[in-house]
Amino acid sequence: MYMKHLVVLGAGRSTTALIQYVCEQRQQYDWKVTVADASAQTIATLQQQYPTVEVQQLDVLNKEARNNIIEQADLVISMLPARFHIHVVHSCLALQKNLITASYVSDDVKELRADIEEKGLLFLYECGLDPGLDHMSAMKIIDGIKAQGGTVTSFQSSCGGLMAPGSDDNPWRYKFTWNPRNVVLAGKFGTAQYLYKGRYKNIPHHHVFKRLTAVEVPGYGRFESYPNRDSLKYRELYGIYEAETILRGTLRRPGFCAAWNAFVQLGLTDDSYEVRNLENMTYADFVRAYLPYSEDSLVTNFSRYIGTDVTSELMDRITWLGLLDEKPIGMTKASPADVLQKLLETKWQTLSQDEDMIVMQHLVGHQLNGEDHLTTSSLAVTGQLNHLSGMAKTVGYPLGIATKLILTNQISLTGLAIPVHQEIYQPILKELETLGISFVETTRSLHPILQD
Amino acid sequence: MYMKHLVVLGAGRSTTALIQYVCEQRQQYDWKVTVADASAQTIATLQQQYPTVEVQQLDVLNKEARNNIIEQADLVISMLPARFHIHVVHSCLALQKNLITASYVSDDVKELRADIEEKGLLFLYECGLDPGLDHMSAMKIIDGIKAQGGTVTSFQSSCGGLMAPGSDDNPWRYKFTWNPRNVVLAGKFGTAQYLYKGRYKNIPHHHVFKRLTAVEVPGYGRFESYPNRDSLKYRELYGIYEAETILRGTLRRPGFCAAWNAFVQLGLTDDSYEVRNLENMTYADFVRAYLPYSEDSLVTNFSRYIGTDVTSELMDRITWLGLLDEKPIGMTKASPADVLQKLLETKWQTLSQDEDMIVMQHLVGHQLNGEDHLTTSSLAVTGQLNHLSGMAKTVGYPLGIATKLILTNQISLTGLAIPVHQEIYQPILKELETLGISFVETTRSLHPILQD
Repeated sequence: MYMKHLVVLGAGRSTTALIQYVCEQRQQYDWKVTVADASAQTIATLQQQYPTVEVQQLDVLNKEARNNIIEQADLVISMLPARFHIHVVHSCLALQKNLITASYVSDDVKELRADIEEKGLLFLYECGLDPGLDHMSAMKIIDGIKAQGGTVTSFQSSCGGLMAPGSDDNPWRYKFTWNPRNVVLAGKFGTAQYLYKGRYKNIPHHHVFKRLTAVEVPGYGRFESYPNRDSLKYRELYGIYEAETILRGTLRRPGFCAAWNAFVQLGLTDDSYEVRNLENMTYADFVRAYLPYSEDSLVTNFSRYIGTDVTSELMDRITWLGLLDEKPIGMTKASPADVLQKLLETKWQTLSQDEDMIVMQHLVGHQLNGEDHLTTSSLAVTGQLNHLSGMAKTVGYPLGIATKLILTNQISLTGLAIPVHQEIYQPILKELETLGISFVETTRSLHPILQD
Repeated sequence: MYMKHLVVLGAGRSTTALIQYVCEQRQQYDWKVTVADASAQTIATLQQQYPTVEVQQLDVLNKEARNNIIEQADLVISMLPARFHIHVVHSCLALQKNLITASYVSDDVKELRADIEEKGLLFLYECGLDPGLDHMSAMKIIDGIKAQGGTVTSFQSSCGGLMAPGSDDNPWRYKFTWNPRNVVLAGKFGTAQYLYKGRYKNIPHHHVFKRLTAVEVPGYGRFESYPNRDSLKYRELYGIYEAETILRGTLRRPGFCAAWNAFVQLGLTDDSYEVRNLENMTYADFVRAYLPYSEDSLVTNFSRYIGTDVTSELMDRITWLGLLDEKPIGMTKASPADVLQKLLETKWQTLSQDEDMIVMQHLVGHQLNGEDHLTTSSLAVTGQLNHLSGMAKTVGYPLGIATKLILTNQISLTGLAIPVHQEIYQPILKELETLGISFVETTRSLHPILQD
């Protein structure tokens, strides 16, 4: 029998669960698995851990090397940084190979939509956690409502990569499990746009961390959600044209956003200029550069400017970071965001025994037979950072299952796609339940109308 | 006797006083004056008003035409928009002509500094109001302090183009006498950086309109000043290396900045995206897109979000603009800043009988014989908008007097310069007094130390 050949490009931190999953499955399905990465060290470690996997060092920008490896594949999974995808896309098109990735559909691949369709290939994008699992779990609810003849009237959805209870042991209840740069610059790239009760909302980045929604996840307590940049695209992606509210957000533990907002208000998340005189500054001096002149103590001046009590939990969070300390920063040329990031990287460092937690919740309002209902679907997945993190599992398993579905010819869909289709999300969500990734879904009736 | 030939490039709104001045002087000094402009209509109107001036229609990007006119000149004044200067600069260098302009020294002309110096030419930049008169009046004080053996310990300076008393007849006490776009986008281009009591201050654009200084001008009452983008460059320009405070600001009447800050907080001054669904919106709908959802009235919701009383003067200013009215906007594709600008242009329109007012004030702290002093130097110049505005006079007369000084060989300075030199500013400030542009200067002793 012909042995199917799976090629995984990129073997970074987010691929651990994916590689573990496909290695388990390959025994049953008799696949050949090749993993290629730019780093010799990553490849060597991987080979040690998975001796049955073929490994290869690859410079993906080298067209010949790239084509050589893709040529052998029945299916390519690209786990490379997003900017490299387009090279893989061109090779897959030329060599007629199917492709899966967890990245967003980019403008450059959209231009190739007709080509992909014409060749009968499947390029399945946005098949990890967010984007990925968010589409699948939301579409399961939305398609279910439509199948009953109902209408989706509101869609609110939030997701966050956080620390599990017990590992959230600092005043922010947060540590970096994701690219620190992206966290520090969150909200800096434009206006948050969403729909709320029929009204378009545009929130400038400097108010994003004030416009919060409370989110309760049974068994895990309360979170707060700040609005993402573009919620409006989900109207079309999910076909929820009657929804009067469409709002996507990012989850943090309560109090995080108010304290982060202090940084935004002061201008500490700005990445557009170098701080003058930085080489002579302590963290306290750095903060003073953003506050009005005062003879009062820094903590008094800070709390007064931000409008909080000097003994508030917000001030505890700020103080705990050491941001008000007379300690030399030790940087020369850096933006305010660079200074903040360096400090946060030391304070929000994870420990090897820490567990992370992925939290996702959808609130889907709908009308059915003239009555209003609200479906709440919640997910919390924890994992050990030094083994299989919650992030690695929720990114890797959906990709792994999609891989199996394609290699076993269970998907008829072709073209450039994301997992909003039942034939994709249904078997993936079903198998994810057996892997400990299951949404808790409840629906309640609302009389007479949804009140927020 | 050889007749000196003055060539003025550009005859826009800000050149009226300059052309009037040089036409008066040309009779005494027997100059030939040529004015060139891109607009045939501007040229025709000018010819009618000043029959003794030679006029010429000119496309300044046409090198041959440009060189033809510059070749005849003894001195060129460029009143063109800043982006055209560099072409004039190259022609003046090639044809060995002196040049005056009211524009900022640009990076591209800085690169030609050695060339200009070597050819013994004078390219006098920043010779209008701001930049221009600000340099002259500040340097007169600073040089005076240094001449007495004193040290400048602080420098605060503000300038504003406002309406004269009687013409400031709306709740904002403001109308557009300057490019509306620049007013709407003020503060959007980066962080305000200054020095205050020995500390560097960095104010993000969304806090600029909260960080105000009160300014009192005898006979004209109170103003408020918000910080400009780069105050720190004045340390070097003015040689005030011992100053522990260096702050430049822009003047408005009290209450303006707090109300403008409401726009900034909401995001209405954002120019980076098109407002969705704009074609169906009233001004009230537009504002709602930036506020949290509420069943309360718009004026209540607005005032609560901004943190002011519903009956406050701030709300009077907002309401007077019609920004809360259910009146269709009538625009299709536009940024929030475009919408705001269109509304302001109708409401902040000047009337033909209106008078404008230029206000400038320097506060220069200094130590002399171990004692602290504060020199206050204030200027207010009003003018009729339909004849000679305050703006036209304060931009045009300094340029005109500098012209006379150069054409009568009273300036020995060569190279790329701005009017911080005594041989330039002293005769200009002296003649300006005869034209009704005079600073009121007072110095008082401070015991024991400057307190703000």
